[in-house]
Amino acid sequence: MKVDVALTLALVPDDLSARDVAVVIDVVRATTTLVAALDAGALGVRPVGDLGEARALAAEHGVLLAGERQGHPPPGFHLGNSPREMTSDVVGGRELVLTTTNGTQAVVRCRGAGTILAGALVNAEATARAALAAEPERVLLVCAGSRGEVAADDVAAAGCLVGNLALLAGAEPGDGARIAAALFDAWRHDLLGLLRRSRSGQHVIEEGLEPDLAVCARVDALPLAVGLDGGGVLRKLGSS
Amino acid sequence: MKVDVALTLALVPDDLSARDVAVVIDVVRATTTLVAALDAGALGVRPVGDLGEARALAAEHGVLLAGERQGHPPPGFHLGNSPREMTSDVVGGRELVLTTTNGTQAVVRCRGAGTILAGALVNAEATARAALAAEPERVLLVCAGSRGEVAADDVAAAGCLVGNLALLAGAEPGDGARIAAALFDAWRHDLLGLLRRSRSGQHVIEEGLEPDLAVCARVDALPLAVGLDGGGVLRKLGSS
Repeated sequence: MKVDVALTLALVPDDLSARDVAVVIDVVRATTTLVAALDAGALGVRPVGDLGEARALAAEHGVLLAGERQGHPPPGFHLGNSPREMTSDVVGGRELVLTTTNGTQAVVRCRGAGTILAGALVNAEATARAALAAEPERVLLVCAGSRGEVAADDVAAAGCLVGNLALLAGAEPGDGARIAAALFDAWRHDLLGLLRRSRSGQHVIEEGLEPDLAVCARVDALPLAVGLDGGGVLRKLGSS
Repeated sequence: MKVDVALTLALVPDDLSARDVAVVIDVVRATTTLVAALDAGALGVRPVGDLGEARALAAEHGVLLAGERQGHPPPGFHLGNSPREMTSDVVGGRELVLTTTNGTQAVVRCRGAGTILAGALVNAEATARAALAAEPERVLLVCAGSRGEVAADDVAAAGCLVGNLALLAGAEPGDGARIAAALFDAWRHDLLGLLRRSRSGQHVIEEGLEPDLAVCARVDALPLAVGLDGGGVLRKLGSS
């Protein structure tokens, strides 16, 4: 089995097939937030690109709207894009629509893969185990990045997953996987420091939401795997 | 001053300006080979994309033709793309044309920069010093990669340059620069091991040219800076 890392969406290979597992990673903050929502009892999270589509879905199906523009919930939204907002009293038993830009593009870009998972530092080991359970030929870790540029937070989480996959299955790493593993290893004892210094982290700090970064930096704090179902909704695996 | 790394050519920003220095990096093997040629007394190296253009230049100007397709010199070429071929008795006092694909594309992609240098592990510190001498607003380290994919050898050399720039000038690293620095730090005591494991290195080994990798892995072994002149020729800086 091979494991490789697409360091940005531009580097996702064109040859994704049903034998591949793709893991979409957007640590600060989309995938951390949606894992937190599912951990808190949300039934599903639908990633949606634009605000209009999100509002239409909410009007039609009575789902909770979550997302951000410049760090805050757009008008009419129930929730922002902060993992700290995803408490069971707010999201338990509900379906969410989460508007993201990078994260949604990443899901679309991975459409050819047989299985699509959502990974972050908070669920790294659970995600690695779920990826292996699919017995793929290749696990491709897809860093969503930020507006086309590489994001250190995503690459660090990819590196954490590479380590898990190497440990669990002796997966053979490509160049991108070695690069990501080196970043995670260099910062594993100060992931919060890396997130604070990253461009994504700097934006969150500027928006006054620095405590979110501590949540995003906690490895394996939310041990659940999340997969995309046939209807385009991200759900906790092992439930339905 | 900022320092950042474009991990592949697709990630080179569109806003390169005259205030930027771009360093093109293709460790295995184009930039190592051309630095070796200039160190051995070649007067200049012109990077050219295709074989026909290279042959036309050679016919017209009597230059030496160097390059490879599948690891060996194409018909009519005087030299391959191996740094071990670049000895003073062969290249001393001569102009070379070097056909590369990734390396040439990288030079074209960096056209907007005020200064374009060619960097590798063998001339990392000299390249960092030359970049700083231009007093740029930004140093962009451009990893040529391999057929659009990220190449660990190039990223490691970029990380080595990031370390030098941080030491010499306290340069402020972006996310790409932190990623590259972590890769170099992880492998700094076994760069040859990293090159052997990289996809580019694997190709060189398959072609029977493994000893080239030891040359490519030697940090600061050839302490000269190389810059592109106005005529599109790479020359040793400090000479003309």
